Amino acid sequence: MAPPEETDPRPARLSRRRLLGYTAVGVGGAVAGAGSALAATQDAPPPVDAVGTRTVAFHGPHQAGVTTPAQARAVFAGLDLRDGVGAEAIGRLLRLWTQDAAALTAGRPATADPAPTLAERPAGLTVTFGFGPGLFDAIGRPDAVPAGFVPAPTFPIDRLLPRWSDGDLLVQVCADDSIAAAHAVRVLLVGARPFATVRWQQSGFLPHAGVAPGTTPRNLMGQLDGTANPTENDGLDDVVWSREGWLAGGTTMILRRIRMDLDEWDRVPPPEQEQAIGRRLSDGAPLTGGREHDPADFSRRDHHGLVIPADAHIRRARPHHGQDRILRRGYSYDDGVDTDGNPDAGLLFASYQASFHRQFLPVQRRLAALDALNTWTTPVGSAVFAIPPGCEPGGWIGQTLLESAADGP
Amino acid sequence: MAPPEETDPRPARLSRRRLLGYTAVGVGGAVAGAGSALAATQDAPPPVDAVGTRTVAFHGPHQAGVTTPAQARAVFAGLDLRDGVGAEAIGRLLRLWTQDAAALTAGRPATADPAPTLAERPAGLTVTFGFGPGLFDAIGRPDAVPAGFVPAPTFPIDRLLPRWSDGDLLVQVCADDSIAAAHAVRVLLVGARPFATVRWQQSGFLPHAGVAPGTTPRNLMGQLDGTANPTENDGLDDVVWSREGWLAGGTTMILRRIRMDLDEWDRVPPPEQEQAIGRRLSDGAPLTGGREHDPADFSRRDHHGLVIPADAHIRRARPHHGQDRILRRGYSYDDGVDTDGNPDAGLLFASYQASFHRQFLPVQRRLAALDALNTWTTPVGSAVFAIPPGCEPGGWIGQTLLESAADGP
Ligand code: HEM
Ligand code: HEM
Repeated sequence: MAPPEETDPRPARLSRRRLLGYTAVGVGGAVAGAGSALAATQDAPPPVDAVGTRTVAFHGPHQAGVTTPAQARAVFAGLDLRDGVGAEAIGRLLRLWTQDAAALTAGRPATADPAPTLAERPAGLTVTFGFGPGLFDAIGRPDAVPAGFVPAPTFPIDRLLPRWSDGDLLVQVCADDSIAAAHAVRVLLVGARPFATVRWQQSGFLPHAGVAPGTTPRNLMGQLDGTANPTENDGLDDVVWSREGWLAGGTTMILRRIRMDLDEWDRVPPPEQEQAIGRRLSDGAPLTGGREHDPADFSRRDHHGLVIPADAHIRRARPHHGQDRILRRGYSYDDGVDTDGNPDAGLLFASYQASFHRQFLPVQRRLAALDALNTWTTPVGSAVFAIPPGCEPGGWIGQTLLESAADGP
Repeated sequence: MAPPEETDPRPARLSRRRLLGYTAVGVGGAVAGAGSALAATQDAPPPVDAVGTRTVAFHGPHQAGVTTPAQARAVFAGLDLRDGVGAEAIGRLLRLWTQDAAALTAGRPATADPAPTLAERPAGLTVTFGFGPGLFDAIGRPDAVPAGFVPAPTFPIDRLLPRWSDGDLLVQVCADDSIAAAHAVRVLLVGARPFATVRWQQSGFLPHAGVAPGTTPRNLMGQLDGTANPTENDGLDDVVWSREGWLAGGTTMILRRIRMDLDEWDRVPPPEQEQAIGRRLSDGAPLTGGREHDPADFSRRDHHGLVIPADAHIRRARPHHGQDRILRRGYSYDDGVDTDGNPDAGLLFASYQASFHRQFLPVQRRLAALDALNTWTTPVGSAVFAIPPGCEPGGWIGQTLLESAADGP
């Protein structure tokens, strides 16, 4: 933060407070019109009794769960391959997983589903599989690892715990219902038992279906989070989908568990909170004015200096020359108190990008070097995965890697 | 379980499987008409964009969150009073909590709300406060402790961990949105800091709003759970609300964290799973036939013996002479894997009853002595709380205890 600017004269916070004081619940409507980047790709909200029966297509050129509008609940599981499990066994697991995921996302029970009735309401379920660096060793294809994955990327700000880091396989399950998600995770992890053990499992939330349709979700710091994400009309496909080798139609993903020090954050005066991001808390508009989706003016100065400070999160994170764009699809998490009694809450930051080293790494390096947010956030877990392309009926996820000759992306 | 009955000839499982195989998602409609005990007290599902702005009245003769139709998400926090905190300080905390809960449940920010924008969409938020046995010592009123709370009730089946047990104060927060719930919990726990520390915090889920309106929810064992709960037309108020002393208009609550051994459960043939409960998995109807809400015939025998076996959960749990009825309002939980890699999932069993020792204890004693379900379930946490009556605007929760003379319930 830029200390001289603490006495920021902008009235944003005050007027928001006044607004809240008098119109209470009705105020939701005031921001509903703004629309959000993620919401722009979203269908109209389904009728309320259709939340449970909604399905998202499993088959196609890309796996679902990446550019799919984010559902209310996400569960991420990272698995370690058992000793001696190689390409052939991994192929068997992926055929089983593909079959089960195709059934579950369509609202049908999986093969040997232990609780088939729990498959009846998929609630927009998506299942997304990913390959960690260790999987490429296990199949003897280190050439096929996405650039930037090895050695595991770490940054000076990180305080990574093995409990929340790494993994050879990813299962990402998202749905608009927690029971649909829990059931799918259980089925898939039981299916994986002969091949792999669960290293970590973490879950997060976004607004439930019907809570705030058409608006950008807020994270636990109270910020609108997702505003500047790429949209379909604005290069989303180019940002996300790889065109290289076995990964063509797939993407790379990083999942970082970022703990928030909400106690300290709460003590920060609202204008300083807004400067840490560079956007208003009330409506997510840039501090240089306008509405949520209007462009920020990063050169604007007032008598205190830069209106969006040098260390503001959006100044540091925004793309340079349009090259290093990423798709963020994060979920808030609140795991209560850890065994020492400390609150464990924050963001399961998930981002997807065609090229990990050309898109994600430069952004994260800039943020690790300077970002006002770092004062109140600590990455405690990190894992990277190649997300293989989708498949058509009859095919299976991972086929392009496991049936290909050496031609790394 | 009654082993000779393993080869149960009833075709329930087969026909359900066939149904699922062919109608997939559409089958949701087949059970939707049945209605459930909890659902019977439920309003018609709100329009989809009103999930976020819906409010539940905070003030009234009873606290909300007990007979309120269960929302999608629950967070329970158990707190320990700090040394030296007595009646006067507890009174201050409860005045603050009352004020904050009244604001948050109405969609308004709390006093000194650190993130007022997160209060905008309460999504049917309820906040329910409770008093554990230690609070009565702290205020010098051991006479006012509900009967059966001291010594802490334990049963031979229990494997209780201190990490999930006991506590002097309860904060129960339920909402149809995880962010509304997380925000309310944070505000209330921060407000409590000068007075108490967080001992445990656990959260659970039921179907999200709009996923399965009008149906009884399923737990992670796949069973319809809640069928035989008391309804408004069937003595709900008498079951739940105490009429005695300071607790009049309040109730007693027990929260038991019951881990499910889903791996073992999955290996049990479906007919045996059904006998463990005494109801069909497909539609929750008693094994003696009919539909979900039809009465079970506990004396019926076939050539194997009792159709609903002697150790079936519903035979053991059902009320004796209508005396020991309870209101169950449990939530599924799935906390992934513990640090040893074992799945940690099950039921946050919450029950409410006017008299703890006359209603809850006899049921739990019967189940601890004999209940087929015990094979696959292990209580790992347990905490009891008196839930004081509600209050009108200007009053505060706990007033009847903290401002009363000695007149225990
Ligand atoms: C707890 C940690 C974080 C929080 C609370 C957070 C919050 C935010 C917020 C509120 C915005 C502005 C609204 C928006 O466009 O979404 C934003 C923008 C952004 N963040 Fe983060 N963020 C976090 C971590 C990260 C990380 C780890 C990265 C990447 C390494 C990242 C990359 C970005 C990008 C690229 C933008 C858009 C910048 C622009 O083009 O305007 N953020 N973030
Ligand atoms: C993980 C543990 C448990 C599971 C999975 C479970 C599941 C069920 C199911 C499926 C039913 C039948 C449908 C219904 O009426 O809701 C039921 C009924 C019931 N359960 Fe449980 N239960 C558990 C623990 C308990 C405990 C600890 C108690 C009380 C000490 C209890 C008391 C009852 C009662 C009173 C009924 C209704 C019996 C009747 O009148 O028909 N349950 N339970």
